[in-house]
Amino acid sequence: MDMPDSARTRVAALALAARGRAIAPLFEAEPDRLDRFTLDAAGLHIDFARQAIASGELDALLGLARAARIEACRDAMLRGDRVNPTEDRPALHTALRRDPAEPLVVDGVDLMPGVARELARMERFCEAVRDGRWRGATHRPIADVVAIGIGGSSLGPLLACEALRARAHRRLRIHFLSNVDPGAWAALHPQLDQASTLVVIASKSWRTLETARNAEAARDWLLARSIDLAGLARHLVGITANPAGAHAFGLSDEAIFGFEDWVGGRFSLWSAIGLPAMLSVGAQNFRELLAGARAMDRHFAEAPLARNAPVLLALVSWWNRLVLDGGTEAVIPYCDALRRLPAWLQQLQMESNGKSVDLDGRPLSGPSIPVVWGEPGTDAQHSFFQALHQGRSVHPVEFVLTVPEAPDPQGRDLALLANALAQAEALMHGRSLQESLDELQAQGLDAAQAQRLAPHRVHPGSRPSTTVLLDRLDPARLGALLALYEHRTAVMGWLHRLNSFDQWGVELGKQMAVQAEALLRGTDGAAAAGRDPSSTALLQRVRALLAGRG
Amino acid sequence: MDMPDSARTRVAALALAARGRAIAPLFEAEPDRLDRFTLDAAGLHIDFARQAIASGELDALLGLARAARIEACRDAMLRGDRVNPTEDRPALHTALRRDPAEPLVVDGVDLMPGVARELARMERFCEAVRDGRWRGATHRPIADVVAIGIGGSSLGPLLACEALRARAHRRLRIHFLSNVDPGAWAALHPQLDQASTLVVIASKSWRTLETARNAEAARDWLLARSIDLAGLARHLVGITANPAGAHAFGLSDEAIFGFEDWVGGRFSLWSAIGLPAMLSVGAQNFRELLAGARAMDRHFAEAPLARNAPVLLALVSWWNRLVLDGGTEAVIPYCDALRRLPAWLQQLQMESNGKSVDLDGRPLSGPSIPVVWGEPGTDAQHSFFQALHQGRSVHPVEFVLTVPEAPDPQGRDLALLANALAQAEALMHGRSLQESLDELQAQGLDAAQAQRLAPHRVHPGSRPSTTVLLDRLDPARLGALLALYEHRTAVMGWLHRLNSFDQWGVELGKQMAVQAEALLRGTDGAAAAGRDPSSTALLQRVRALLAGRG
Repeated sequence: MDMPDSARTRVAALALAARGRAIAPLFEAEPDRLDRFTLDAAGLHIDFARQAIASGELDALLGLARAARIEACRDAMLRGDRVNPTEDRPALHTALRRDPAEPLVVDGVDLMPGVARELARMERFCEAVRDGRWRGATHRPIADVVAIGIGGSSLGPLLACEALRARAHRRLRIHFLSNVDPGAWAALHPQLDQASTLVVIASKSWRTLETARNAEAARDWLLARSIDLAGLARHLVGITANPAGAHAFGLSDEAIFGFEDWVGGRFSLWSAIGLPAMLSVGAQNFRELLAGARAMDRHFAEAPLARNAPVLLALVSWWNRLVLDGGTEAVIPYCDALRRLPAWLQQLQMESNGKSVDLDGRPLSGPSIPVVWGEPGTDAQHSFFQALHQGRSVHPVEFVLTVPEAPDPQGRDLALLANALAQAEALMHGRSLQESLDELQAQGLDAAQAQRLAPHRVHPGSRPSTTVLLDRLDPARLGALLALYEHRTAVMGWLHRLNSFDQWGVELGKQMAVQAEALLRGTDGAAAAGRDPSSTALLQRVRALLAGRG
Repeated sequence: MDMPDSARTRVAALALAARGRAIAPLFEAEPDRLDRFTLDAAGLHIDFARQAIASGELDALLGLARAARIEACRDAMLRGDRVNPTEDRPALHTALRRDPAEPLVVDGVDLMPGVARELARMERFCEAVRDGRWRGATHRPIADVVAIGIGGSSLGPLLACEALRARAHRRLRIHFLSNVDPGAWAALHPQLDQASTLVVIASKSWRTLETARNAEAARDWLLARSIDLAGLARHLVGITANPAGAHAFGLSDEAIFGFEDWVGGRFSLWSAIGLPAMLSVGAQNFRELLAGARAMDRHFAEAPLARNAPVLLALVSWWNRLVLDGGTEAVIPYCDALRRLPAWLQQLQMESNGKSVDLDGRPLSGPSIPVVWGEPGTDAQHSFFQALHQGRSVHPVEFVLTVPEAPDPQGRDLALLANALAQAEALMHGRSLQESLDELQAQGLDAAQAQRLAPHRVHPGSRPSTTVLLDRLDPARLGALLALYEHRTAVMGWLHRLNSFDQWGVELGKQMAVQAEALLRGTDGAAAAGRDPSSTALLQRVRALLAGRG
């Protein structure tokens, strides 16, 4: 593996020299910059020309991608190689949106008939619920759907439901229940009527603590309202890769929608996990979502590295972690319906790549992996944008713009987009001390006042951003956007030579929680020995508080 | 200013030596650690014993606080000195929750009668809406409240409404409208009936673009439903520090709730800005919220530095920025009703302290100011906790625990708290390579398999956290919690000697957005000259997309 190391060294040396780089002059020095640093892919327009990357540095980054054999890794993933060795399986979320006419043979079996069959089952079920043929035990049509699931079984369908809310079925309200906090369910169920509520329980393993407990609570709530065990079948369905577990919960085969273990939770919107979204927007819109993702898959599979959107954005991320001191990446959707895009992306990137060892278990040596965070614009402008503009640490920003579908009488559509564009511009250009002084004096301040205030109004500028523009927020473009991020995440993993598809870091806390819960129940007092004083004291304090409740 | 510099140098030297410090051994070395690193304040229990700070290092940090004259800064803020010099005014949010019997004379005027008067006006109005005496133009009681506001005019009241939802008025639904994206209002208003909707418009300056445009849209919507201009007075109220602006919008004095310019937006929940929360939970609960904050104010004002919660937590933050490489602070409320605490805190800290210059306009030299981010637990465990446990960068975590008020049949209350406690424990203890090996071999894997998988299951440990425990989530404890964070934020600012109370970094983007909007309207084509090629190309592309809509 010498090649990747020398390409890495070259990039690292260039990045060291590029620290503190002014961005605007790159446009003067590189007349073809806009051609090279913008592209269109699967209906998305992507502009990363305001990143602090010179053209020659992009060449070096592309050299890094070649050295890391990104194309080979990509092809291996797409054809179903076991790219997740610690769990000994492929990562085949792309099969879920593949053209069903194209076979995908893995270990001698064509996966596509199974994918098509499950999708067709989902469609039949969803259309029956939507058009009122599927009814509750007392023959009422379904009005509310409670989607129980957490992490990857929640964030994707929640995002899709919100993003496509303008296309939502008018009768159906979709609610998401994820947190094990009993307050979540307590706040939700008074809004619901058992007779017209469908509960959808989603857990890949069917062993997820939160989902199991919330499912029990929902089932008890259904049974409390004179729905008998037979009638329950009209109100409960499950989504899982472990149908035996769902059987044990009492679900029949007809009530279980399945997917295979080669679909990772955070990549699972395209599978039966997407059922709540399909219930909301219907089979046709869900197919368009899949088609949009498929278009991005094709772009990813076919575009040369230098024009390949997921690859380029992964390289930008690598570069920024070397050049900047901030350690994070902000994503700001200028679109209220995409307000949970940052949360979805946060799981996708951080659970995939928040690792310390490579595929061989050796410590990683590349740049650090960023924290992903954000809130929608324009809200965020009135919150943390102060720090993006004037803070000392520099955090690259990804602006995701969507063009509202209709003109707005109050001009809010223009204001929304104007703000997004202006923020990217302001981050790059900044405002110098002299400009601040001039502006204050033009406002009539005397020289002493202006001198005193001007430093507080300086914006350093040269803060990098990428803009992703969607002509409109429709299912296809949403699918393309999410697939873009999925592939960027995978490429980032391959650049580091880590496994983006496992998540061993979530196990230890789960194991320790089982012990802690036993302690809180008071059935296992002895296990407190060996804990640190802080844990012991808090456990005792919480146990006393629980016991002392009215 | 030599004293602070030498104290800083001392802390920085200790921090350099402490990098990579193992946390658990601190408990063995310091038998009194739990006493020193835990405290109770205003009904909150705070445990920062699992921070990577040795006892002697805490002494040095306290020396830093003394050198920075934190007590003098605090006293100056609380008594109404002009601690915000760039805007030439005090920061007196604490006056809003002060005991009304204690005068607060600033510039020769006692502020308390005005505070009490406005609070009493709010209470009369809210109780009238709540008990149905205040009715719409067609005599229907109010059922829906649309709270229009953004940033500080939204995040605080939204958080309070969600946090106290178990105490919400049963008839009233409170909706928040902040984003200028027309899709936000489009998704909301079909759920509303004009005849029973009250619109509350909140803007300190009454010039906030988003709020002005959304207010226009809401007013047009009210008028469209045969509510005449006279009837409008039953459906529209304003909250502002600029009553002249609200008059120009057509509001009468009776319909305007005011506050003074010494209340910063991000500190304004306690003022008339809190009206939506008071509508939801009533005057008595709102007074308890204020009383809880007042209790924390008193603690902050009176406790010695070494036992002063806001001061100690600010020092922890300073230390972590020196010792850790992550550059962020995660806040994880184990409480679904506090799911927006991270967003509120993000604005509070990052807008207050995301600065590059000190009070005198000189570049800051202390540690970097963190990004604040987070999602509720247990959700976050299924998202980015992977990276907290196994990622290479270390991010300190603040766990905020609340004890659910009633036992849960499914034991979700215990599970929630057990998980929170276990996560903090797992972050500190980690799992070594040997422990991973042993565990895998105990599961029956052969030596070669165990050797291969074990590195992927290592948790490095020694990842610091603080736990804040609320006996229950009631108005008083919520008030204390938020006041704790307000004061921590101010102390962080004073440690840096920066102005936490201005926000000049939000101005440039706003100015540039005005130009960009004119360009998108096509009324100011010439201004495109002088823009960078990327901005110009995106403006043209967006303009074409807007023009091409159906």
